[in-house]
Amino acid sequence: MKEIRLAARPTGWPTLEHFDVAECEVPEPGNDQVLVRNLFMSVDPYMRGRMNDTKSYIPPFQVGAPLDGGAIGEVVASPAGGIPVGAVVVHGYGWREYAAVDARQVTVVDPDAAPTLSAYLGVLGMTGLTAYVGLLDIAQFRAGDTVFVSGAAGAVGSIVGQIARLRGAKRVIGSAGSPEKARHLTEELGFDAAFNYRDAPVRDQLRAAAPDGIDVYFDNVGGDHLEAAIGELRKYGRVALCGAIAQYNDTAPPTGPRNLAQAIGKELNLRGFIVSNHNDRMGDFVAEVGGWLRDGRLSARETVVDGLANAPEAFLGLLRGENTGKMLVRLGERAG
Amino acid sequence: MKEIRLAARPTGWPTLEHFDVAECEVPEPGNDQVLVRNLFMSVDPYMRGRMNDTKSYIPPFQVGAPLDGGAIGEVVASPAGGIPVGAVVVHGYGWREYAAVDARQVTVVDPDAAPTLSAYLGVLGMTGLTAYVGLLDIAQFRAGDTVFVSGAAGAVGSIVGQIARLRGAKRVIGSAGSPEKARHLTEELGFDAAFNYRDAPVRDQLRAAAPDGIDVYFDNVGGDHLEAAIGELRKYGRVALCGAIAQYNDTAPPTGPRNLAQAIGKELNLRGFIVSNHNDRMGDFVAEVGGWLRDGRLSARETVVDGLANAPEAFLGLLRGENTGKMLVRLGERAG
Repeated sequence: MKEIRLAARPTGWPTLEHFDVAECEVPEPGNDQVLVRNLFMSVDPYMRGRMNDTKSYIPPFQVGAPLDGGAIGEVVASPAGGIPVGAVVVHGYGWREYAAVDARQVTVVDPDAAPTLSAYLGVLGMTGLTAYVGLLDIAQFRAGDTVFVSGAAGAVGSIVGQIARLRGAKRVIGSAGSPEKARHLTEELGFDAAFNYRDAPVRDQLRAAAPDGIDVYFDNVGGDHLEAAIGELRKYGRVALCGAIAQYNDTAPPTGPRNLAQAIGKELNLRGFIVSNHNDRMGDFVAEVGGWLRDGRLSARETVVDGLANAPEAFLGLLRGENTGKMLVRLGERAG
Repeated sequence: MKEIRLAARPTGWPTLEHFDVAECEVPEPGNDQVLVRNLFMSVDPYMRGRMNDTKSYIPPFQVGAPLDGGAIGEVVASPAGGIPVGAVVVHGYGWREYAAVDARQVTVVDPDAAPTLSAYLGVLGMTGLTAYVGLLDIAQFRAGDTVFVSGAAGAVGSIVGQIARLRGAKRVIGSAGSPEKARHLTEELGFDAAFNYRDAPVRDQLRAAAPDGIDVYFDNVGGDHLEAAIGELRKYGRVALCGAIAQYNDTAPPTGPRNLAQAIGKELNLRGFIVSNHNDRMGDFVAEVGGWLRDGRLSARETVVDGLANAPEAFLGLLRGENTGKMLVRLGERAG
């Protein structure tokens, strides 16, 4: 089997040389484990932070060891038998073709309850839950709010904007990194306005798209997007700080937001969050978003790359913003 | 009578030339008004913002017109008679010796219920309420928290630190602008640690004073204090954004906080607030803080300047950090 290992820690933008495609033995599952043949794995922006040797909310990847992250696969061996061979499971050991995983660390899913298996890593998985929790619980979205989301054509942002629309937003505005993505937002996902942040300063484009200001900002990007949003937030505005992809490969600290003192007079609330602490909302989330997905009111584009050996390139493409919707790597087909 | 008018709008640091000490007629109170002879007036950092012609949560001062702000005085005429002559009232028309004020815009207070009349502008007034609401409601202080407050020898900061101590903080740390003020915090107000922010980088001094990090930061200062606090906040840390006095006279925007992206992984909550929207907490505040003040467990230093003509200099001294505790101007003695 193959697995992807961290070859070296990058400074600034990573390249293929920071990854190693290694051949190794298929692991033998222990008595409390199942052996999973992975079918899809997720690449996510937060993985860039794990390539650095810095203390954070999850431990860094280790040089010479395989990377890990969200994956879905099929159980091919189950010594204890509690989870049957053939079951489809979500777990945290991607970046490898086979994984031996503790049985209590996997989540068995119904492969027929989702439009595609990969949805369990995206719109019906941690990605969708991130959007749901961030918008509703962290940013305290209320019907009638005007919402701005950055990285809006990405996996999380595209769900945020659609939940806002379906929950009664007054106006939903998204920013993305190409004219095609901006069109995708308004023409296919029902955003009221969208712009390509490369066209002109974010502040100017946001003001034009939301002349009366915004109530909620869902931040996937950081940098000048966050500063622009603080400037355009109305009294009692709320910000969900979810990601800062614009800064992840920077070697110098950003200069802003230089206008954070506006939070005093406008009584803004800015709140960072990590989805893994909000698993108690999974039931509500699956019921609501799963329903919209089934009846076609919410859609989730995927960008799928084939083959584990291409996973590093998929991850680098994600950092460059080449995906629309969730970026995934397909590792195999279901046998069952 | 005399009143202080805005002579010109400052760019950067204001000087005495931006103020005009004007002679004018004592106003005639209307039928729904009382005429108040002012005894004390408050100077506050937020007034610097009102000298600029920028939209904010309160309208800017107008060039050629008198300034306004918190004051306490004695009623000397009361055409409708609802509020008796001789009553002591708190109101919003400072910066003048006499004020005609709508009767429903004044708050009658008991002059014998406070240690000094001026306390109604400070520890028992908006200043104390700012500390109480910011620490308890905005920063969601809980017993056992380690608390850092900047501008800790100032009117608000000195109350914040004492409330935290009396409510069961694990550790209370303050920063101030001189070694005398830092000593005042630890020796007289019961702070566990204090430092002079001019001695060394705030980040280094804060880390030394709170080696295990902080849970709550009460920000009166902005700038490098806020950035240092974000760096030292622990998981689920909370920030009350109350003021940014370090920046009020800057003509260029600040460069930070450059590390706000740490709010994501640490799941920080930063919240700005304006005390005037929290008057519903006045009853709880007076009961709790008034009790501590009476039994001597909480103390409130004042820096008092005499005479209306010296009010501009008092305000400039406040911006330079020359006060310890609440900065007030005494305009007269109570006749009653």
